[in-house]
Amino acid sequence: MKKLNKCAILTIGDELLIGQTIDTNSAWIAQQLNPLGLEMIQRIAVGDSKSAIRDGLNYIRQSADLIFITGGLGPTSDDITKPFLCEYFGGKLVCNEAVLEHVRHYFESRKRVILESNLRQAWVPDCCEVLFNQVGTAPGMWFENNGQIFISLPGVPFEMQHIVGEIVLPKLKPLCGLQNIQHRTIITCGEGESFIAERLKTFEKELPRHIKLAYLPQLNLVKLRLSSSNDHEEIDRYFQKLQQILAHILVATEDIELERLLSRILTERNQTLSIAESCTGGHLAAKLTSLKGASSIFKGGMVPYSIESKINVLGVPEVLIEQHSVVSQEVVESMAFRCRSLYKTDYAIAISGYLEKGDHDNEVWIGLSSSTMLESFKIHVRFDRARNTIVTLTVAMDALRKFIIKH
Amino acid sequence: MKKLNKCAILTIGDELLIGQTIDTNSAWIAQQLNPLGLEMIQRIAVGDSKSAIRDGLNYIRQSADLIFITGGLGPTSDDITKPFLCEYFGGKLVCNEAVLEHVRHYFESRKRVILESNLRQAWVPDCCEVLFNQVGTAPGMWFENNGQIFISLPGVPFEMQHIVGEIVLPKLKPLCGLQNIQHRTIITCGEGESFIAERLKTFEKELPRHIKLAYLPQLNLVKLRLSSSNDHEEIDRYFQKLQQILAHILVATEDIELERLLSRILTERNQTLSIAESCTGGHLAAKLTSLKGASSIFKGGMVPYSIESKINVLGVPEVLIEQHSVVSQEVVESMAFRCRSLYKTDYAIAISGYLEKGDHDNEVWIGLSSSTMLESFKIHVRFDRARNTIVTLTVAMDALRKFIIKH
Repeated sequence: MKKLNKCAILTIGDELLIGQTIDTNSAWIAQQLNPLGLEMIQRIAVGDSKSAIRDGLNYIRQSADLIFITGGLGPTSDDITKPFLCEYFGGKLVCNEAVLEHVRHYFESRKRVILESNLRQAWVPDCCEVLFNQVGTAPGMWFENNGQIFISLPGVPFEMQHIVGEIVLPKLKPLCGLQNIQHRTIITCGEGESFIAERLKTFEKELPRHIKLAYLPQLNLVKLRLSSSNDHEEIDRYFQKLQQILAHILVATEDIELERLLSRILTERNQTLSIAESCTGGHLAAKLTSLKGASSIFKGGMVPYSIESKINVLGVPEVLIEQHSVVSQEVVESMAFRCRSLYKTDYAIAISGYLEKGDHDNEVWIGLSSSTMLESFKIHVRFDRARNTIVTLTVAMDALRKFIIKH
Repeated sequence: MKKLNKCAILTIGDELLIGQTIDTNSAWIAQQLNPLGLEMIQRIAVGDSKSAIRDGLNYIRQSADLIFITGGLGPTSDDITKPFLCEYFGGKLVCNEAVLEHVRHYFESRKRVILESNLRQAWVPDCCEVLFNQVGTAPGMWFENNGQIFISLPGVPFEMQHIVGEIVLPKLKPLCGLQNIQHRTIITCGEGESFIAERLKTFEKELPRHIKLAYLPQLNLVKLRLSSSNDHEEIDRYFQKLQQILAHILVATEDIELERLLSRILTERNQTLSIAESCTGGHLAAKLTSLKGASSIFKGGMVPYSIESKINVLGVPEVLIEQHSVVSQEVVESMAFRCRSLYKTDYAIAISGYLEKGDHDNEVWIGLSSSTMLESFKIHVRFDRARNTIVTLTVAMDALRKFIIKH
């Protein structure tokens, strides 16, 4: 078989098409394949119908060597992928003893009654290699047909991820060419996409044709990605240049979440943080505590969502709120100061403002406290609640990062 | 033009294919189109190359009357959708004065320098109708060709949403057939997909062919959706029956987030809530405060992430932690009790446990407090940190819902 090169994904499920579920599987699969030098060229989503699956598969196989198929493998009657693929590749369903044993054990160890529909999961096409599902009951399937590989996986993300990580990637590695597509990403904060593009005009002109530059604008952040199929020394040279040109707005030289960057900086310095966030309602604490080992840098947070809780629980002096209003420089600074002393941390950050569209003038104050400094600033947000939350978190995390580095 | 019926989406962008960005636009668009009776039949994602866009578009137009195209409309050189579509539909780029005026004003009002690349956004194909972008600078485009409609939109979600909501949907409405696809969803908690399927065996057999039943399993939740293109009385009859069969595990009779359901129940009863969450690190508070008007039911929260903060800030007696360990029934009940009295709310919920895989036996305690009751229970979680967080939030919110309803 010639080395694999181009791959594609077919996702199956009405819930994906009508917008009830957002497809996160495809992004995850693509991320795993990139280091193998496989190029993802297309993705198709179709509904739970045999004719739609057939059309999609016939089309997608025209251009890819390797096709991932996700979804439609559950035990219920709307799960038609397995019988369809069996028919499509001209096989018949046979009982796989190892899977049957596993399904039985899966239910017995959980003290759950086993149903006929569960046992049916052990019936697999005789024209495929079974990809054993350790963490669920629907096995994956590996078909080879006309020099192409088709890998069918359950749609439940953690089952799919388990099978890909444990079985599929090790099987694929020797089948892939060695040509690795290199990606380099930088993150900037503070300038819009078109401004950055203007700064990079000469840089882009000098860029060889085989190195691509992509702009990935987000709310208050722009990521820039260089991609090349050539050796890494060349792309690293251009990547260095890119960092020099954008040094004034540079946040990170890798594709990393800001909370991970913050956590890494605090860990390296062996320092701790606490949070008093009102309008962002726990989102900042949630971001930081999503990371493994968060307890070594994050000691605690507070969501003082009412005026009473700002006074009675956090300990902001009532007179400050009366004199300056609840969203003010004085109050946010007091929140940061009180938070740091309650939780006894090296740094505290406080956030307070209006995020709902039309509330006042949508002012958000951010306060930062350390043992030697108390700083604050305000921003204006102008979108809806969800986007204003993201903007505020981005600005707050970048400000905190700079505040910590100053020390 | 005959009434529109089938639609499809083509998304453009390397970042979607390589997995750097998750496509949330498609789900949002599909949700908007469903009430118009439009059936979403396919979705294709391609990279930033003219040949890939051409192939995808040629394929997708074989089966749909209405095609949405998102992405690739920015001001930078990797944005090739506009020149491509202009060429594809045989037009030429002309300057649109209204867009030019808008772009100028957009930059002037923000006191930002305007660049040549920004002005280029005002150049649009002469073979399309311009869809004015009030909230950004890249206009959308509406093409008609061979009895089909092609709508090109920016990939930035809020710009796309704005144009669709304000311009596209009103324009589409009169072009759509009246046949409305009806969906009915129930949410259940407490039984697995195959168990539910077993209970619904007879129900499924009796279901007419034109009513489809779909299982949408999530972590600790199963959603079930009935879909029909027939009149709503018939589907409502089957929907009633479905609710009766699954009454013992029924959470909601609509597709609603649990936090929204909780918020609605508290609002109707004019009651308030506070939260002390340790292992979930602010995620529960973040969910509740994502909703508009959260401040009327949510008074405040705490993330006592360290033992010291449980004692010194929340006020859990140190002796309880020493005697029973920090993750225990006694401590979580004290957390709930202390939280309710600090924030002076009708209810408080406390969560404390181990979510990281391998930590102890991954026990999580949930405590619930009201003026007359103090309850607690534990669950065992067995996935990774992210999934364990979701499981814990789901169980906690459903328990809180039942706790409130009992009062």
